[in-house]
Amino acid sequence: MSTFPERLLEGYQSFMTGRYTAERQRYRDLAEAGQEPHTLVIACCDSRAAPETIFDCGPGELFVVRNVANLVPPYAPDSNYHATSAALEFAVQSLKIRQIVVMGHGRCGGIKAALDPNAAPLSPGDFIGQWMGLLKPAAQQIQDSQLMTGGERQVALERISIRNSLANLRSFPCVKILEDKGKMALHGAWFDISTGELWVMDPKSGDFFRPEPGLA
Amino acid sequence: MSTFPERLLEGYQSFMTGRYTAERQRYRDLAEAGQEPHTLVIACCDSRAAPETIFDCGPGELFVVRNVANLVPPYAPDSNYHATSAALEFAVQSLKIRQIVVMGHGRCGGIKAALDPNAAPLSPGDFIGQWMGLLKPAAQQIQDSQLMTGGERQVALERISIRNSLANLRSFPCVKILEDKGKMALHGAWFDISTGELWVMDPKSGDFFRPEPGLA
Amino acid sequence: MSTFPERLLEGYQSFMTGRYTAERQRYRDLAEAGQEPHTLVIACCDSRAAPETIFDCGPGELFVVRNVANLVPPYAPDSNYHATSAALEFAVQSLKIRQIVVMGHGRCGGIKAALDPNAAPLSPGDFIGQWMGLLKPAAQQIQDSQLMTGGERQVALERISIRNSLANLRSFPCVKILEDKGKMALHGAWFDISTGELWVMDPKSGDFFRPEPGLA
Amino acid sequence: MSTFPERLLEGYQSFMTGRYTAERQRYRDLAEAGQEPHTLVIACCDSRAAPETIFDCGPGELFVVRNVANLVPPYAPDSNYHATSAALEFAVQSLKIRQIVVMGHGRCGGIKAALDPNAAPLSPGDFIGQWMGLLKPAAQQIQDSQLMTGGERQVALERISIRNSLANLRSFPCVKILEDKGKMALHGAWFDISTGELWVMDPKSGDFFRPEPGLA
Repeated sequence: MSTFPERLLEGYQSFMTGRYTAERQRYRDLAEAGQEPHTLVIACCDSRAAPETIFDCGPGELFVVRNVANLVPPYAPDSNYHATSAALEFAVQSLKIRQIVVMGHGRCGGIKAALDPNAAPLSPGDFIGQWMGLLKPAAQQIQDSQLMTGGERQVALERISIRNSLANLRSFPCVKILEDKGKMALHGAWFDISTGELWVMDPKSGDFFRPEPGLA
Repeated sequence: MSTFPERLLEGYQSFMTGRYTAERQRYRDLAEAGQEPHTLVIACCDSRAAPETIFDCGPGELFVVRNVANLVPPYAPDSNYHATSAALEFAVQSLKIRQIVVMGHGRCGGIKAALDPNAAPLSPGDFIGQWMGLLKPAAQQIQDSQLMTGGERQVALERISIRNSLANLRSFPCVKILEDKGKMALHGAWFDISTGELWVMDPKSGDFFRPEPGLA
Repeated sequence: MSTFPERLLEGYQSFMTGRYTAERQRYRDLAEAGQEPHTLVIACCDSRAAPETIFDCGPGELFVVRNVANLVPPYAPDSNYHATSAALEFAVQSLKIRQIVVMGHGRCGGIKAALDPNAAPLSPGDFIGQWMGLLKPAAQQIQDSQLMTGGERQVALERISIRNSLANLRSFPCVKILEDKGKMALHGAWFDISTGELWVMDPKSGDFFRPEPGLA
Repeated sequence: MSTFPERLLEGYQSFMTGRYTAERQRYRDLAEAGQEPHTLVIACCDSRAAPETIFDCGPGELFVVRNVANLVPPYAPDSNYHATSAALEFAVQSLKIRQIVVMGHGRCGGIKAALDPNAAPLSPGDFIGQWMGLLKPAAQQIQDSQLMTGGERQVALERISIRNSLANLRSFPCVKILEDKGKMALHGAWFDISTGELWVMDPKSGDFFRPEPGLA
C-alpha cells in the first residue's frame, strides 16, 4: 500500500506538460515575489466543488480554506487550535486580502448530516457532530419545517449556513473594522452541482440569485 | 463594496462554456449518485498550490481539506470544534475514502512564520501562533540548526510538517485500524512552486524524492 | 366614467387584425364543436403571470381558473358557492380534462399577505384574510423560520402552496380515482417573474427544478 | 403520468425566445416595482376566451379572476372561503384598481348547464349546480321563455349573468362607495367566440352593442 497513487502521478504529468509549461514563468515569479491572491475563498471539501475549477482561476489568485460545509466558527481567542480562524487571520493580516467569498454548494453532505435527526456519530469522537453543531439552532429550525421537501430544507440550510459564516466572519475584529471602513468586501455564493448554476448572495437581503440569468 | 467580484464572474463564465459544457453529464451524475472521491488530500490554503490543478483532477476525484500549512492536529475527542478532524472523519467513515495524501509545498508562509523567532502575533487573537504551535517542538529544533541556511530550514520544516501530519493522522483510531489491516494508504507529497517539481515521500524512510526524475 | 376603456378597445382591435385574422377558422371550429382543452391550469390573478402568455397557448388549449395565490380549497360538498371546486368539477366531469397544472409564481401578493404577521384586514369583510387562511398552518411555520430571508420565506410558501393545492385536488374523489387509475396527471409549476424562469415540480419529491437548464 | 406536459414546455420555450426576450426589462421592472394593473377582469375559465388574448394585453396590465361563467357572488362577510370576493378585495383595496370589466362570452358551458332543466349533478358534490345556483332565478325565467330559441336563451342568460355580476359587485361596500364618488368604473363585455366580435354593455340601459360596427 505504499506507492504513490498512479492516478495522481498521471494527473501531475498532464499538469506539467499542460498548464505548467504554459505558465512556467508565472510560477517562478510567484515563487520569487510571493503570493498576492485577490480573494480568500472559504469553501467545502466536497470533491465536486473546487473553487479553482468553478471560477477557472490560475495559480496565485485564490487563497482557499476548505472544511466540511464551508463553516466559519465565531471569534474565540482561546488556547485551542483554530484552523479556519488561523487561515482567516493569515489572509487578512499577512496577505492583506480584502475580498472574502464564502462558497456553499448543493447536495452538501455535512448539511445533510446536520439535518438528519437520527444521525449517529460517525465515530466515537463524533467530530462531524461537534463541527456541524456550529449550525445546530438553524438546523433544528429547518428540520421542523416539515412542509418543505427534503430537497428544499437542504438548500435552505445550505444558504443559511453561508449567511451564518458571513456573520461569524464579522465577529472577527479585523474583518469588522475593515468592512466598516469600506475597505473589505464579504460575499456569499452557492454552486449547484447538478446544473452548474452559480447563485450569488445579495448583500442587503441575503437572498441568492443567478447573476446573469441568460448565462448558462 | 457589494457587487460580486467581476474576475470571479468572468472565470465562472469561462468554466461554464468550457469544462462544464464538456462534463455536463458527469456533473449531473455526480449530483444524482453522490460523490465517491478516490483520495482525501490535506493541503495548504496557498494560492499557488491547489491540488486539483497540480494533479489535474476533475470533479468528483479529490476530497480536499485546506488549512494553513496542511496540518493535522492529533486525535482529541473533546467538545471543541475541529475542522480538520471533522473532515477526516467524514472522508473515512462516511465516504469510505481509503487513500490520504498530505501535500505540502515550498515557500509556505505558515512554515516561515513558525520559523521566525521574532514573529509577533498577527492579531490579538494570535490564531496563526496557536495553529502553528502544533509544530512548535519541531520548529524550535530547526531554528537552532544554524548551520543550515534559511532556505534549507524552511524546506526541512515543510517536510517535517508533512511527516508530523501523517503521524497525527495515525493517532485517529479509524485511520490506524484500517492502515494496520492494509486497507488504508497514507502518502506525503511536496510541491516546489518555483520549478513545478513534485516530490513524494518514501513511506519507509520518510525521505522525499522525485518519482520520475526525467519528467519535468 | 361610463365609456369602455380605450386601452382595451385598442388591444381588441390589435387582436382582430392580428391573431384572430390568422386563426379565424380555428375560432369558428371551436365555437361549432365546443372546446376540448388539453389542460386545466389553476393560476393566480396576478397581472404578470397569465398562463396563456407563459405557455404561449392559443384558443381552445387551456381551461383556466384564476384566484388569488392559485389555491384549491379541500373537498367540501356543502351548500356554499365554491368557485374553484365548481371549475374543477366542470373541467374533469364535463370537459374530461385529464391533465391539471397548479401554477404559482414569484412575488405573489397573496402569499406575501399570508406571511405578514401584522397584516390588517383589507376591508371589514376580510376576504383575503379568510381566503389565505387556507394556508394558515403553513404560513405560520414559515413565518417562524427567521433564519430564512424574507425572499426565501416567500418562495418557500409559494411552493408549499402549490403542493398544498395539489394535495387538496386529491381530496376530490373524481381526481383521486382517476389519478389512482393512472388516467389523470397532476403537475406543479412556478414562474419567476423577474427572470422568466419556469420551474416545474418533481412529482415524487415535490421539489422544483428548471426543466432545461440551458434553455433560457 | 409524471413528466411535465411537453406541449407546455414547448410553448414556454416559444415564450422565452419570443415575448420574454422582447420584454425582458419590463418583466424585471414589474418584479422589482410590483404590479400596477389598470383593470380587473372577471372572466370565464373557457379556453376560448382568455382576456389577455382578446384584449392583446401584456404583462402587468390585467388582474384576472377566472371562474365558471364569470360570476360574482353577492357580498357575504362570513367565515367561508370566497375566491372571487377575496380577489376583488385585493384588487380594489391593495392594488387600488379602479376599473372593473366583467367579461362573458358566447357558447358558455356553465350558462348552458344552468339553462338545462334536466341537468344532473356532475358529481355527488354538485359544485357546478351550487355555483350556477347564483343565477337560478334568472335561469328559471329564461327557461320559461319558450318563444325564444335555444340559442337566444343562451345569449340572453349570458348577458343577464354579466349584469347580475355587476349588480353583485355593487353589493360590496368598497365598490359601491368608490363608484358613487365617481372614482370607480364598472363595465360589461361579451365576446362572440364564433365571429370574434366584442360587444360592450351600455352602462345606462344594460344593452350590449358593438363599439365600432365596421371594425371586425
